[in-house]
Amino acid sequence: MGRTSPGAAARMAAVADPVIPQVGALMRQRPDALSLAQGMVSWAPPQAVCQAVGRAMVEADRRLDRYGPVQGEEALLEAVRRELTEVRGLDLEGSDLLVTAGSNMAFHAIAQVLCDPGDEVLLPLPFYFNHAMAIRLAGGVPVPVAAGLVPDPERLAAAITPRTRAIVTISPSNPSGLVTPPEVLAAINGLCHRHGLLHVSDEAYADFIHGAVPHRGPGRLPGSGGHTVSLFSLSKAYGMAGWRVGYAAVPRQLMGALAKVQDTVLICPPLVSQRAALAALEAGPAWCRPHIATLGQRRRQLIDAVAAARTGGQTLELLGPPDGAFYGLLRFPSGLGGEPLMRHLVLGHGVAALPGDSFGLPRAGGQALLRLSYGMLDASALAEALGRLFRALAVLQAAGE
Amino acid sequence: MGRTSPGAAARMAAVADPVIPQVGALMRQRPDALSLAQGMVSWAPPQAVCQAVGRAMVEADRRLDRYGPVQGEEALLEAVRRELTEVRGLDLEGSDLLVTAGSNMAFHAIAQVLCDPGDEVLLPLPFYFNHAMAIRLAGGVPVPVAAGLVPDPERLAAAITPRTRAIVTISPSNPSGLVTPPEVLAAINGLCHRHGLLHVSDEAYADFIHGAVPHRGPGRLPGSGGHTVSLFSLSKAYGMAGWRVGYAAVPRQLMGALAKVQDTVLICPPLVSQRAALAALEAGPAWCRPHIATLGQRRRQLIDAVAAARTGGQTLELLGPPDGAFYGLLRFPSGLGGEPLMRHLVLGHGVAALPGDSFGLPRAGGQALLRLSYGMLDASALAEALGRLFRALAVLQAAGE
Repeated sequence: MGRTSPGAAARMAAVADPVIPQVGALMRQRPDALSLAQGMVSWAPPQAVCQAVGRAMVEADRRLDRYGPVQGEEALLEAVRRELTEVRGLDLEGSDLLVTAGSNMAFHAIAQVLCDPGDEVLLPLPFYFNHAMAIRLAGGVPVPVAAGLVPDPERLAAAITPRTRAIVTISPSNPSGLVTPPEVLAAINGLCHRHGLLHVSDEAYADFIHGAVPHRGPGRLPGSGGHTVSLFSLSKAYGMAGWRVGYAAVPRQLMGALAKVQDTVLICPPLVSQRAALAALEAGPAWCRPHIATLGQRRRQLIDAVAAARTGGQTLELLGPPDGAFYGLLRFPSGLGGEPLMRHLVLGHGVAALPGDSFGLPRAGGQALLRLSYGMLDASALAEALGRLFRALAVLQAAGE
Repeated sequence: MGRTSPGAAARMAAVADPVIPQVGALMRQRPDALSLAQGMVSWAPPQAVCQAVGRAMVEADRRLDRYGPVQGEEALLEAVRRELTEVRGLDLEGSDLLVTAGSNMAFHAIAQVLCDPGDEVLLPLPFYFNHAMAIRLAGGVPVPVAAGLVPDPERLAAAITPRTRAIVTISPSNPSGLVTPPEVLAAINGLCHRHGLLHVSDEAYADFIHGAVPHRGPGRLPGSGGHTVSLFSLSKAYGMAGWRVGYAAVPRQLMGALAKVQDTVLICPPLVSQRAALAALEAGPAWCRPHIATLGQRRRQLIDAVAAARTGGQTLELLGPPDGAFYGLLRFPSGLGGEPLMRHLVLGHGVAALPGDSFGLPRAGGQALLRLSYGMLDASALAEALGRLFRALAVLQAAGE
């Protein structure tokens, strides 16, 4: 075999095993299992997406067959610029735009550009696993910080060292569903600015707001563009996960290096997905709103079901409030965590969810966590899935596990 | 701004500036310029591609909207397996398959998995610039080896050090168009096996054979799967550059690490491009053959035009024979190389080509090189482009530049 270096092997070993394929493998053994695991919504993209791509096929539009610009197609970049300024209110002075094949790819590119071996990136707990994986892949050190579900800027500040390069926030949060208030994001952004750090703001769930706290990204702050990365995705709000397209506002002075990464990894984003993205952005957040509103009902159902289980005597708790995205973090007494817990749920009880381990929160003090996604299930399937879940957890508790 | 480490900044500075965007910027200043620069063909994908994607749009096929398996869709992997074994004769014992968003992405993933800082990867000269960039990005050291246009295994062997991890071959070659004879590829593969190195065989141009030497990839050798990466692309033979889809046979023992990279960077290849790829593979190499045959005529035209220019007294030479791909390397006396040479050609004479510098061969001994791509132009445009090129080079020679 091709010998890999001991160092490279150790670095790759430090990159976590992808959890989604793991849960997928379990679910293939139990085809009737219901999924509270995957971060996906149930709705289809706007009809305009199918129409635009279908039209390009009928017209045999040759633009889709050829290489395009490394940052993305001009028309799409223009639509992104309009969306970010007019809809989201970002200050793009000092920023440049980059379209990628999913916003994970933009995070990966940032990590590659930013990190020397040993460089630290602060990830408030719970973190999103692919962030930690990208930092490890770049040779950096993801530093989980127990800063509270709404990350406390002072606790983040205390974790800064001379090796710190960036702070990552995710609001609305994957996996907790919490929405970080605008003033807290502003404080973290100011902290980054003062310490010469990059603020990487993952806003894949920006439109998924079910409570009173609004989402306002740190890229709205005047003058933030030079030290802020704002990541957006079409996978969630537009139901376009399989199309792999996202976009980012990045500090202009990083664009040269990011273009090198993009040229090396992707050459250019797939043109057909860019065409689809353009049609989706033209439909706009107004198109997404009614879909997201139905998720608000699922969220209510989740909160009520947990409350009912507690009333029924079961010990469990939804951390929160889960006012955004389509996730909630459930905490409960458990002797199992990680893969054994997933296995118990899927194979034993026909319901899948991701363990806290994947988000930097393994079982501790006899308590385990699960991320529950209510993005994919209708009301009756969600009721059934939660019923199975609560029974599975009751079995664990009864067994003293 | 976010501070990047001095080491990270140095690493990114060592990654070459992408040359294609550079030439694109020049061509926007001279819209009538003809391109001998970009590695693309002129034909459209098989009609079956448009039909398959169009049908999915009409039927609103929800599979395209959802995340898929990290290695690629089952049906596509099956088609790839058939193609690699039945058409290309690879021995996949010991191999696993990976679909990526273009074969550059597979090379990037390999480099990430393989390289520690300082690890060396041997690149026979001339190399493909994105290979060198991916190795630099991973912190590795691309080691250009002057091993001859058909790489001499003994000269490659002499370049192996304790830090060497892999040898890369490209046959048919980008940028020279040379086809490396099967027995030479076999010797290099054996060398890799004996030294515990990976043989990365880039076969993006596998179907583009215009001369007597056939292409037979090293993955055909019995037992080679465990130490051989074979990279394939749909961008060239199927005219699908913009769809960003390629595939690789990789040593099975690297698949776990490669899946981590893929999950981190891409999650899964875009489903719409996979659907397109499946339709293209069903059309198969038989579909590509007549298109590639027309390129054979362009190649003859290039060779004849160079011969005529020599007869006319001009000093220039096509390295070769350029029997594969759709490239030729032209050598000529020049006082200019690199970006100034590109600028002279595009802005001064309305014709674009890539300088040898991009492939590790800068001007030396008063001689410069250009990669000429004849993939995109019809007979009359190619004649005009070559006319402009020869005049531009004559001007250089007359000026003593």
